[in-house]
Amino acid sequence: MATVKLWSDAEADADARVSAVFADIRATRGSDVVNNFWRGLANDPALLERTWSALKTVMGPGTLDPLTKELVYIAVSIANGCPYCIHSHTAAARAKGLTEGQHGEFLAVVGMANQTNALVNGMQIPIDAAFRVEEGP
Amino acid sequence: MATVKLWSDAEADADARVSAVFADIRATRGSDVVNNFWRGLANDPALLERTWSALKTVMGPGTLDPLTKELVYIAVSIANGCPYCIHSHTAAARAKGLTEGQHGEFLAVVGMANQTNALVNGMQIPIDAAFRVEEGP
Amino acid sequence: MATVKLWSDAEADADARVSAVFADIRATRGSDVVNNFWRGLANDPALLERTWSALKTVMGPGTLDPLTKELVYIAVSIANGCPYCIHSHTAAARAKGLTEGQHGEFLAVVGMANQTNALVNGMQIPIDAAFRVEEGP
Amino acid sequence: MATVKLWSDAEADADARVSAVFADIRATRGSDVVNNFWRGLANDPALLERTWSALKTVMGPGTLDPLTKELVYIAVSIANGCPYCIHSHTAAARAKGLTEGQHGEFLAVVGMANQTNALVNGMQIPIDAAFRVEEGP
Amino acid sequence: MATVKLWSDAEADADARVSAVFADIRATRGSDVVNNFWRGLANDPALLERTWSALKTVMGPGTLDPLTKELVYIAVSIANGCPYCIHSHTAAARAKGLTEGQHGEFLAVVGMANQTNALVNGMQIPIDAAFRVEEGP
Amino acid sequence: MATVKLWSDAEADADARVSAVFADIRATRGSDVVNNFWRGLANDPALLERTWSALKTVMGPGTLDPLTKELVYIAVSIANGCPYCIHSHTAAARAKGLTEGQHGEFLAVVGMANQTNALVNGMQIPIDAAFRVEEGP
Repeated sequence: MATVKLWSDAEADADARVSAVFADIRATRGSDVVNNFWRGLANDPALLERTWSALKTVMGPGTLDPLTKELVYIAVSIANGCPYCIHSHTAAARAKGLTEGQHGEFLAVVGMANQTNALVNGMQIPIDAAFRVEEGP
Repeated sequence: MATVKLWSDAEADADARVSAVFADIRATRGSDVVNNFWRGLANDPALLERTWSALKTVMGPGTLDPLTKELVYIAVSIANGCPYCIHSHTAAARAKGLTEGQHGEFLAVVGMANQTNALVNGMQIPIDAAFRVEEGP
Repeated sequence: MATVKLWSDAEADADARVSAVFADIRATRGSDVVNNFWRGLANDPALLERTWSALKTVMGPGTLDPLTKELVYIAVSIANGCPYCIHSHTAAARAKGLTEGQHGEFLAVVGMANQTNALVNGMQIPIDAAFRVEEGP
Repeated sequence: MATVKLWSDAEADADARVSAVFADIRATRGSDVVNNFWRGLANDPALLERTWSALKTVMGPGTLDPLTKELVYIAVSIANGCPYCIHSHTAAARAKGLTEGQHGEFLAVVGMANQTNALVNGMQIPIDAAFRVEEGP
Repeated sequence: MATVKLWSDAEADADARVSAVFADIRATRGSDVVNNFWRGLANDPALLERTWSALKTVMGPGTLDPLTKELVYIAVSIANGCPYCIHSHTAAARAKGLTEGQHGEFLAVVGMANQTNALVNGMQIPIDAAFRVEEGP
Repeated sequence: MATVKLWSDAEADADARVSAVFADIRATRGSDVVNNFWRGLANDPALLERTWSALKTVMGPGTLDPLTKELVYIAVSIANGCPYCIHSHTAAARAKGLTEGQHGEFLAVVGMANQTNALVNGMQIPIDAAFRVEEGP
């Protein structure tokens, strides 16, 4: 189904750079699973390293809580139409505590945003002066 | 600039349905500003009523905090390329407490999601069995 | 396959709000089929109610004929890449009289619009004064 | 603002292929206006000829009425976020008889489609057997 | 799975316009395979003819090399989320010499572009005067 | 116009991390210009550093030529509707030798891809077995 080879553990073990990233994924997540996304990226070890390093940093501890970050990730993935990403990050959000009630409420916000995006674009609404706040206080 | 007329307050005052919605927007937000989006929707009072009613419900109190909802809204608007929506909801997020640090972190998540969406789609990665959790416990 | 549970009829029957919406869907369409979209939305009865109510109103009788509305719906679904939506609304359009000839012509318009959208965006064409008609008569 | 030169009438007159297309645009539309899109495409006369020829055929007489075709065109342009295309085809739709009431109803359908596209994608709803009608009678 | 019938060779043979296009596809590509896209378009012979004619011209010899054209095609298909198009044009690119190393590098560019598109849209960056080069020398 | 502050040179000079990135941008490009994108990212020095580092690597020397990379970048930006990105990378492509003839040919490919993406999605064409090459030799 994929347009690239998905690396097996045996293939990854035979490549120092790939096996190092796979080991870090397992250690960071406390799980033996390395999901297919990383097995596809293994075809380009430099891209694999950069992507994992950036993802680990961006989704790691910061000023936004981890569940909020997952919801933002899913929202983008829905708008872009990426089924794999929607499945993987919905599973991640549930692992981080997303309840059914919150999921429904989240979907309602995503649906609302897509609806009003279309209405705004369709009417080509000019930006209100009040929203031009970037000049700051 | 718009493809529809943006209703002035005087025009809104002359239409019972439109003026009722504008009054509720002002009362709900505790502000005299009715932004251009609603002034464009006023051309179709039924659409104005439905959209405001749904938005008020969806963005109102629930199990997700208000700032998280705004971030999800902006994330969708960025992916869809709606400048007005990005401006208006970034302003709303700041009014609800979004700090510069959180904004940078949010943008990093949105950027990361768009990047990995493209990598996943480009490789056409098949969904891992582990993510097929919908059958539930 | 879904990220949420799809409610069976038995499960729907046990929830007053969900069963009321399912009954109205069946009555409105004159068919016993409740398609999967509604069975997924049932996880959030308030979202189910709002979405069905809005859809029934928007797609119901008005100043645009029902087939035109379905074609607009499919056009959006193609641009957004929603396979389920394309399948369900193409089936609905056929049920409302869409012929093979009209379907081919519709696809040609959708393809043409996507092509010229890209050409316009690629060249960043400025909007002609003649199209700025919003100031009205 | 554009990334390409917009050809003036004088420049077009000096190129046999470009001036022939501009003349046909004017004759077909019964108007002296050649809008900016064609003035940008003039940089590649072959692309200009192919695009105009295809557009004239696709948007010309057929089994779908001209206004329906314009609405489908705008719907795609909204979903793709092409401001120029939204402006030009909304103006064209009005010239073909679109009323304010129809415009509001059209926007409501576009908004609804975008909302349900997002809800369907977010839930990853599997396609009902009933929609798999392509095998036909 | 499709929303239209996919024409068999026998059905194509019975239609003069469709069989002429299928024959030209086979001759141009030096292969007996006519892929499903053309079998779907066959339902509208005029659309089939126009699309094949335009594709043959656009993807044929010119000032850009054939592999570059395929990469541009895949990039658009990834951004639009078209699995069929990604599969078919990745196969075509490989047939035209795309190596694994180039594929990884290409995916990295596509991922980077999607990421920075989102960052730019999220920050609503104004266009630098230096990029407004269209006035030309 | 932006949703964030665009850092002046004076502001950048006062921050060690930002000034180091700005200096590297200038040295790498052999130009004193630091375009607005980086001035917006400066609000989050870590995001600025990561993005510049990744972009420098991805767009730097490799197995694809620099102009091909720029064309892929523009193609994605057109499909995503990012005016800033289209302007900046079209300027970059011209600086790397893109001719008017190549630009027209490139736009034709992008337009064709968007058109066939829509036709494929509209017909929901199933992937040919011949394109499922990922198992490889």
